[in-house]
Amino acid sequence: MDRQKKFLLNEDQIPTHWYNIQAEMPNKPLPMLNPGTKEPLTVDDLAHIFPRECCVQELDQENAWIKIPEPIREKYKYYRATPLVRAYALEEALGTPAHIYFKNESTNPLGSHKINSALAQCYYAKEEGTTNVTTETGAGQWGAALAYAAKIFGLEAAVYQVKISMQQKPYRSSIMRTFGAAVTASPSMSTRAGKDLITKDPTHPGSLGTAISEAVELAVTTPNCKYTLGSVLNHVSLHQTVIGLEAEKQMEMAGEYPDMVVACFGGGSNFSGIAFPFMRHNLNDGKKTEFIAAEPESCPKLTRGKFEYDFGDEAGLTPLIPMFTLGHNFKPANIHAGGLRYHGAGTIVSQLIKDGLMRGVDIPQLESFDAGMLFARTEGIIPAPESCHAIAAVIREAKKCKETGEEKVILFNLSGHGLIDMTAYDQYINGDLQNYQLSDAAIEANTASLEHLT
Amino acid sequence: MDRQKKFLLNEDQIPTHWYNIQAEMPNKPLPMLNPGTKEPLTVDDLAHIFPRECCVQELDQENAWIKIPEPIREKYKYYRATPLVRAYALEEALGTPAHIYFKNESTNPLGSHKINSALAQCYYAKEEGTTNVTTETGAGQWGAALAYAAKIFGLEAAVYQVKISMQQKPYRSSIMRTFGAAVTASPSMSTRAGKDLITKDPTHPGSLGTAISEAVELAVTTPNCKYTLGSVLNHVSLHQTVIGLEAEKQMEMAGEYPDMVVACFGGGSNFSGIAFPFMRHNLNDGKKTEFIAAEPESCPKLTRGKFEYDFGDEAGLTPLIPMFTLGHNFKPANIHAGGLRYHGAGTIVSQLIKDGLMRGVDIPQLESFDAGMLFARTEGIIPAPESCHAIAAVIREAKKCKETGEEKVILFNLSGHGLIDMTAYDQYINGDLQNYQLSDAAIEANTASLEHLT
Repeated sequence: MDRQKKFLLNEDQIPTHWYNIQAEMPNKPLPMLNPGTKEPLTVDDLAHIFPRECCVQELDQENAWIKIPEPIREKYKYYRATPLVRAYALEEALGTPAHIYFKNESTNPLGSHKINSALAQCYYAKEEGTTNVTTETGAGQWGAALAYAAKIFGLEAAVYQVKISMQQKPYRSSIMRTFGAAVTASPSMSTRAGKDLITKDPTHPGSLGTAISEAVELAVTTPNCKYTLGSVLNHVSLHQTVIGLEAEKQMEMAGEYPDMVVACFGGGSNFSGIAFPFMRHNLNDGKKTEFIAAEPESCPKLTRGKFEYDFGDEAGLTPLIPMFTLGHNFKPANIHAGGLRYHGAGTIVSQLIKDGLMRGVDIPQLESFDAGMLFARTEGIIPAPESCHAIAAVIREAKKCKETGEEKVILFNLSGHGLIDMTAYDQYINGDLQNYQLSDAAIEANTASLEHLT
Repeated sequence: MDRQKKFLLNEDQIPTHWYNIQAEMPNKPLPMLNPGTKEPLTVDDLAHIFPRECCVQELDQENAWIKIPEPIREKYKYYRATPLVRAYALEEALGTPAHIYFKNESTNPLGSHKINSALAQCYYAKEEGTTNVTTETGAGQWGAALAYAAKIFGLEAAVYQVKISMQQKPYRSSIMRTFGAAVTASPSMSTRAGKDLITKDPTHPGSLGTAISEAVELAVTTPNCKYTLGSVLNHVSLHQTVIGLEAEKQMEMAGEYPDMVVACFGGGSNFSGIAFPFMRHNLNDGKKTEFIAAEPESCPKLTRGKFEYDFGDEAGLTPLIPMFTLGHNFKPANIHAGGLRYHGAGTIVSQLIKDGLMRGVDIPQLESFDAGMLFARTEGIIPAPESCHAIAAVIREAKKCKETGEEKVILFNLSGHGLIDMTAYDQYINGDLQNYQLSDAAIEANTASLEHLT
């Protein structure tokens, strides 16, 4: 009865630096390329679109530790440190000898880990004199985080939300408006990219690719406006390392060290956040922790994608990124884990997979909700559909431990709660959800022409 | 920059006892009466409906401290202690010299403080051999908490949810189903009380009174089934005192003591929870803290109600309760703070008001959302519409401090978040909300005949 459930840190234990794994990787990520010249991108190239300091961080392969500015740490105190929790009730339900821990990023009032980078990006935008920020969002976790961060740093925020997502999850656009953001359903008539699409197809449901195009267009055509992104890029992963750095101290309080670190994987931000700080001990200190990225069966870029240069968006407007990809024209099935419906992985994670330092697993949609339901009914937290994929991967490993009798220590990141995603749970309970499998031929068709991009 | 934002407690600092203010009140609450015999109710009378241990607690006017059973404390560890937070950003926005603190009950994964009592009631039900519990819920905060508590203690839960609320806030019934509860829209055809209503009016939208009648009927006609209630009663207030007992330790960490304690008021559970532990120092140690219960202008039982014996439900099936009341037939306006739409106050609070130990303030709906928006945009948390009333009352006091220059220490309870209530914020932002004033004549008409009940 006296066993400890939660491991807490005080505010003065919130990390003072982010961890930049690029500086310590055995093989550095390949550079992003200008699609016209095929030259590696420079800070100056990127700084037309993103806050300059973010661009410096994006390309920094030298400095392993980047100081977190005090005004950002001050705002981290509003919701950090998040708890590390031992999932006793889940362990008992599984009858596993494994010790399962989760970092509970769902306790923060924005609903997910996304705020960790939104605060940093808005701070740097403000510091360089920007007055407006813009971004795209699907389900809306990133858009909500950005809306809040913009408000508290005194920036105006314009968010393009995928039209079909806005209709499916209306509460998230309400949240963004509550924080003062202008939210526009994408495609919209407010940009050339949007107009072109609507003119061709007035009923276009939108996509992340289209929303990115609209947000980038707004940023480059508006004075004092910068574009921000919630995942994929290196500086976003960097900001998210506060998750793993805190977890490292908290695991120490628990007197254990993880044999496995697990997170769901869309663009890689929450995975990188929890994994990289532990991975540095594999790289530097001879630790043998396994790192597992849980992706949807219907969007399996890590387990079945090709490593190629590809665009980050559907329209082909971004730089060329070296990534494991399903092809930028890939149309993921309409699963509820909207945050995992992305065709490619970031440059760092793609290199780490090539080097065998981490691996992906793919999870069918129904298995992800089986896992989420069990987690809710044991630990009391309804997980986001994205996070359900991490839980499903953990349950697979915990069941293996039950067979082998191994007391493995498994740590996963609970990246967000599912309170705005209850229609997904409703459909699951009613038996209305399905799995989506992808044929090899479909993947091949989407990726065959990528090699011609470079 | 080094100022402390949050004050945390470790699990071993979660209270070991609840505080029972009944034992230390200068004038004890009047007894509840059997409406037939007009005799004071006994534990045996109540134990037909409620778990017996809850009935013992309900009538206990002797013991100031009630030990929290370890299995309940064990589950409290899943989400408690909740943080005490200094609202620096709100203070700065108001330009007030007041020091504003809030106890953040919104961090728990069920969304509100209700879980503190749901765990206790389900534990006691399980201990006495009960297999099923039932209750009613409006907006669904209580129903969600009960569904989770029942699941983890291995009980079946049946929840009657007010039909119109289920339609307005469908996510909360999804949450209850995710935790395994059977949720029925009330009025329903599953009870005599429901059938009678539907027969008369097939489009009846339901009410808390009707839902109570259905749940009580199910409890008394089902073997091994007990009824549970989320507010109003003394044992519910008792369980909620973990809030204030934690806050007391945390205020000590902050080096301050509250001049004012504020909470919103529906049936009184979250108010009692934060207020009573501090009130004991007014009663015993000469402290002069002010206690303010914030109720909606449209349902002003504390500020404009009559002190009379009245029924707890619309249909008049409950015992007679000595309370400040607007009359059990009072139909509150359809404000978004569903948890505050109740006609009466519990026996303890009613006595405390009579004795001048606390007071009510009434808050117009628009003022409550003004306050909630400001809070969201400063502190980053979207408050439940109920909690917005507490924030509005705090802002009034903080503005007075700005005028007088007083550095008052104000503590309030943030009873829950508003993520499931985003339609309310949408309507506010769109200018579609209104205030509802109540005439003296309307109150008089509803309360005039109450004195004939006893």
